Amino acid sequence: MNMEHLLLPPVPEPDHSAAATVHQRQGRLTKPVGSLGRLEELALQLASITGTSAPSVARKAVIVMAADHGVVAEKVSAYPAEVTAQMVLNFLRGGAAINVLARQAGARVRVVDIGVKSVLPAHPELIVRKVAQGTQNMALGPALTRTQTRSAVQVGLEVVAAECGKGLDLVALGEMGIGNTTASAAIVAALTESPVAQVTGRGTGVDEAGLAHKISVIQRALDLNRPNPWDPLDVLAKVGGLEIAGLVGVILGAAARRVPVVMDGFISGAAALVAAEWVPEVKPFLIASHQSVERGHRVVLERLGKRPLLDLDMRLGEGTGAVLAFHLIEAAARLLNEMATFEEARVSAKP
Amino acid sequence: MNMEHLLLPPVPEPDHSAAATVHQRQGRLTKPVGSLGRLEELALQLASITGTSAPSVARKAVIVMAADHGVVAEKVSAYPAEVTAQMVLNFLRGGAAINVLARQAGARVRVVDIGVKSVLPAHPELIVRKVAQGTQNMALGPALTRTQTRSAVQVGLEVVAAECGKGLDLVALGEMGIGNTTASAAIVAALTESPVAQVTGRGTGVDEAGLAHKISVIQRALDLNRPNPWDPLDVLAKVGGLEIAGLVGVILGAAARRVPVVMDGFISGAAALVAAEWVPEVKPFLIASHQSVERGHRVVLERLGKRPLLDLDMRLGEGTGAVLAFHLIEAAARLLNEMATFEEARVSAKP
Repeated sequence: MNMEHLLLPPVPEPDHSAAATVHQRQGRLTKPVGSLGRLEELALQLASITGTSAPSVARKAVIVMAADHGVVAEKVSAYPAEVTAQMVLNFLRGGAAINVLARQAGARVRVVDIGVKSVLPAHPELIVRKVAQGTQNMALGPALTRTQTRSAVQVGLEVVAAECGKGLDLVALGEMGIGNTTASAAIVAALTESPVAQVTGRGTGVDEAGLAHKISVIQRALDLNRPNPWDPLDVLAKVGGLEIAGLVGVILGAAARRVPVVMDGFISGAAALVAAEWVPEVKPFLIASHQSVERGHRVVLERLGKRPLLDLDMRLGEGTGAVLAFHLIEAAARLLNEMATFEEARVSAKP
Repeated sequence: MNMEHLLLPPVPEPDHSAAATVHQRQGRLTKPVGSLGRLEELALQLASITGTSAPSVARKAVIVMAADHGVVAEKVSAYPAEVTAQMVLNFLRGGAAINVLARQAGARVRVVDIGVKSVLPAHPELIVRKVAQGTQNMALGPALTRTQTRSAVQVGLEVVAAECGKGLDLVALGEMGIGNTTASAAIVAALTESPVAQVTGRGTGVDEAGLAHKISVIQRALDLNRPNPWDPLDVLAKVGGLEIAGLVGVILGAAARRVPVVMDGFISGAAALVAAEWVPEVKPFLIASHQSVERGHRVVLERLGKRPLLDLDMRLGEGTGAVLAFHLIEAAARLLNEMATFEEARVSAKP
């Protein structure tokens, strides 16, 4: 594959006619008009994304991209770097939060090693697409080369294409990477031109001094690398991460195939911001699952113009908030498809 | 049954020791401490309610109490009174929103005719416990006698006792009754001594003039009946409803058996407020599922000191918000029970 020729699949227009058909049906279902609130809005969005007036969300997956970050050498995380690899093994054994929530949701979990530092033991469920053994330390230079970044995006495109081949109605963005709230804060600061302190949170749980240090490291990385806010790929390369680039590919690939993309928290939000700055047409295909505690997430959702479905003080990542919201998205589709109309049920409509 | 001797089952103390065991386990699960936010709080609440450190929410039900309201003669609702009976038939056929959401949640729907005005055709799934053919018009006199009110509470106690006999881990409060936001607003205004306008909303969708009229009718009913805010049963009788009284019984009966009670919107909130004013010990057994659009709901939740899990602009009732939140409550229990600990997964804990 020639990295200079990464071809992005075209993202289609939302289907307004399918949404109009849904809107009409919603007015005939046995409930006061609009009384299902955001579930009705979600059904409209599903229709416009999928291009059908009876959208199904039976086949669900969360794609968990895992990678390491050179910037952990600056002590920006409360956990040691080896936790990335350890958690990947936990995902493969089914013991992590994302496994529990995916089982409950009836969703498959696809774990991708796109840049874990250590060599992981072979496992039938592990998708090994390692672009590098983690990023370089962005406080000392660019995290990734432009070629590596494109490769990682390509991995995301290919992984989601393979999942679509198996049947996919809804996809959640998951990630694991010690240090990745640092990279995400740098991306969001660069793309939105926000002050670093405004988009940097405690991640897995650094203390007050740790937060101040994290902010100073991010500021140093931005000052040193000077990512171009008008070139999302440049930002992704200089201060991003392999799992974040992979998720950008998942977003673009899913949208191109009319599969709704459910964002999780701050890291997947940073990926969505890169994707939306790069290919603005993806925005209507994105669903915001929850409001994370991580402070920069609010800035991301505002920039994307998305209102989250849940606000449960979560800050775990892995795709947990996204998979938890699958239930609401499926409820929206089921209500649309399964409720009786006033005529069918012989219920008097509002006079 | 002698109505003067309605015996309320005693509500137990929350089990703080089970909650402490859960809290300890949560600190050992493979995630940063507290990163599952409100799902961790929910698991603690489930433990303290059920008295077990590994709570299960496998067996779920929504109890939908249906009744009519004499006050609809004052034209307080956008829908005609016969819709109550029509919607009961829709519930029995499985075509209403609550049926769809309950199927998705794996919950059973129990429909109780506790006071529908018309005689409904017999149906194997319909629990007929009619206390009266609807309430009297509270704008002209008391909605119910004290004896009728006690009978309706007793129905709730018995219905939930029967469900517990079949196995019940989680119960949602559902209701159907054209005119019941009017009764609920009157109850909440009386019990919280709030101005009527502050607790009265549009219900199924009255317009601006309709809302002003609804407020004036409620004010008239309160001025005429003068319910005693220190006597919740008096309030329930004078300006309440049979389905609301039935739900009070469901709440008290479930709490007595350590079954978590999931409130829905404004009407079930009014029932919870009556129950909590009557037997304050029930409060820890209540879970707030969602924030309804109906404006008085905020007043109810504040008075109960409950923060809702969802805020989706819903205002349908039937128990829909409560059953939608079952998924989050079940997620909280599953995460607690199924996640691996740091030791089990050999993941490095925070140093």
